[in-house]
Amino acid sequence: MAFLRTPEGVAMTQTGTPAARADTAVLSYAGLPNEQVSAANGFDYAFRQYGPATRPLILFQHFRGNLDNWDPALLDRLAASRRVIAFDNVGVGGTSGTTPDSVRQMATDALAYLDALGIDEMDLLGFSLGSFVAQEVALVRPWAVRRLVLASSAPQGAWGMHGWAPEVIAAVGSRMGNPAGYLDVFYSSSEASRSAGMASLQRMSSRNEDRDAATSWQTRLAQYDAVCDWGIPNDVLVHRVTSIAIPVFVANGDSDPMILPRYSHLLAGLIPDVRLKIYSDAAHGFLFQHHEEFARDVLNFLSEDP
Amino acid sequence: MAFLRTPEGVAMTQTGTPAARADTAVLSYAGLPNEQVSAANGFDYAFRQYGPATRPLILFQHFRGNLDNWDPALLDRLAASRRVIAFDNVGVGGTSGTTPDSVRQMATDALAYLDALGIDEMDLLGFSLGSFVAQEVALVRPWAVRRLVLASSAPQGAWGMHGWAPEVIAAVGSRMGNPAGYLDVFYSSSEASRSAGMASLQRMSSRNEDRDAATSWQTRLAQYDAVCDWGIPNDVLVHRVTSIAIPVFVANGDSDPMILPRYSHLLAGLIPDVRLKIYSDAAHGFLFQHHEEFARDVLNFLSEDP
Repeated sequence: MAFLRTPEGVAMTQTGTPAARADTAVLSYAGLPNEQVSAANGFDYAFRQYGPATRPLILFQHFRGNLDNWDPALLDRLAASRRVIAFDNVGVGGTSGTTPDSVRQMATDALAYLDALGIDEMDLLGFSLGSFVAQEVALVRPWAVRRLVLASSAPQGAWGMHGWAPEVIAAVGSRMGNPAGYLDVFYSSSEASRSAGMASLQRMSSRNEDRDAATSWQTRLAQYDAVCDWGIPNDVLVHRVTSIAIPVFVANGDSDPMILPRYSHLLAGLIPDVRLKIYSDAAHGFLFQHHEEFARDVLNFLSEDP
Repeated sequence: MAFLRTPEGVAMTQTGTPAARADTAVLSYAGLPNEQVSAANGFDYAFRQYGPATRPLILFQHFRGNLDNWDPALLDRLAASRRVIAFDNVGVGGTSGTTPDSVRQMATDALAYLDALGIDEMDLLGFSLGSFVAQEVALVRPWAVRRLVLASSAPQGAWGMHGWAPEVIAAVGSRMGNPAGYLDVFYSSSEASRSAGMASLQRMSSRNEDRDAATSWQTRLAQYDAVCDWGIPNDVLVHRVTSIAIPVFVANGDSDPMILPRYSHLLAGLIPDVRLKIYSDAAHGFLFQHHEEFARDVLNFLSEDP
């Protein structure tokens, strides 16, 4: 596969933002090369990127997910119009280091990666745990984030989400992989949702070469510590998101058992400039199940007039 | 018009709850007699009631509204299945006294009225300012309230609603009545919404005899003080509604300029057992505009299995 690569691993334009690759229109996420960049914090970050030379859309992955856990069908739709960057944060998958146990540190680590790429103007799409990190990045570096997509998200401190429901962490938190448990959390019990889930899993596994390193047990433990920390009830912290002044798109599945839709409503009630959409007959993996609809909604949101 | 009336002004069943009237099925709200009851606090409350002998649904009226500001089309649909009671709180319309300047006192005054009727098991439907009072009643007397409908509502202390938008209070807060201003706040700018608004106003004015006393300037001033007090931003008070443990139906118009839909989302994110519906192409008066749909939704909600 023809692919331009600078010695730094990132093609740069004159304005300092990474450039589009000549052949990105024909690439699928499933065939992208793994790239790597060394950041000032000493860690080497694994990532994949493609799409035209727009303001980049940075993807923040879910609990225990690596680069291979993004559905190519969704990303290819996004990358048809936007530069899309997926990365492993510190300690996750192909990125060096150990995974920290707080969302705040994950944001710091993500910013070190973005600084290494020279990106200082960006849109963020965070999914689940990744949406917590994306919120944190938007709060810590408000001057650099233009638009924010929060998929299956919740504000820090919201009551009732501490550590997720027991059956949810049992399904996705076991030491060995548990595809049935994954399907139970990411898809509803309807046949339509289940078969969409199977199709999405198939697309994720279609990549045969250069798959990402599996996430470790250390990552699982530290990320779940961070999730539990985020969920400690604190009525005051819930209101942190009221200071996110950029446009935000909040999205969730109507029967997500991991992060309930109520928290999307809560975000929509707190964030000043917000759009909310709840996708029907869908659970945690609504964005993969409804990949066409969600990609269209995200692209429309990103191209809205300010 | 034939109408049974006990000397106490309230027909009582053996269980102590007011009974249905024999002819309620044929009555319209527009033709109900004004009733009156004296409460232990020394005030005489004006009210109207009809419908079968179910658990009563108590209606809490909006800013400056009296008994004539409920749309008969909505109430008749509700009263086909439920005992419906509309009342003027202390100082409002035909009820004696002066209007207090806090929601908390309005709840106390409402409870005195309900105690005078001997009602100790009820559903509440609060609209706008009335929804604040209904929340307060549900919080102060949780053991007596079974189900709660909050129409155009917001939790106390929510950021950004302090005193409403200037154009809203200008439209509905003037000393003289301002039908054009009322239409601007209660209905959207679409022709469908406007003509629904005109039709609703016509139904409200169809009553020729025994109209309620107009609300006074004192009521306007005190109620607006209470509205501003309710809207003083306080991130901690916002969470009071998390302790409402009963089923709650939150409803609003999608373009309500007085109490923005964001606060319905906020309520839906905070109240544990909640349903949310946002009615399309509708503003503050969504419940009158969509009276059939809203009545059906309310009745379905009230008859849901616990």
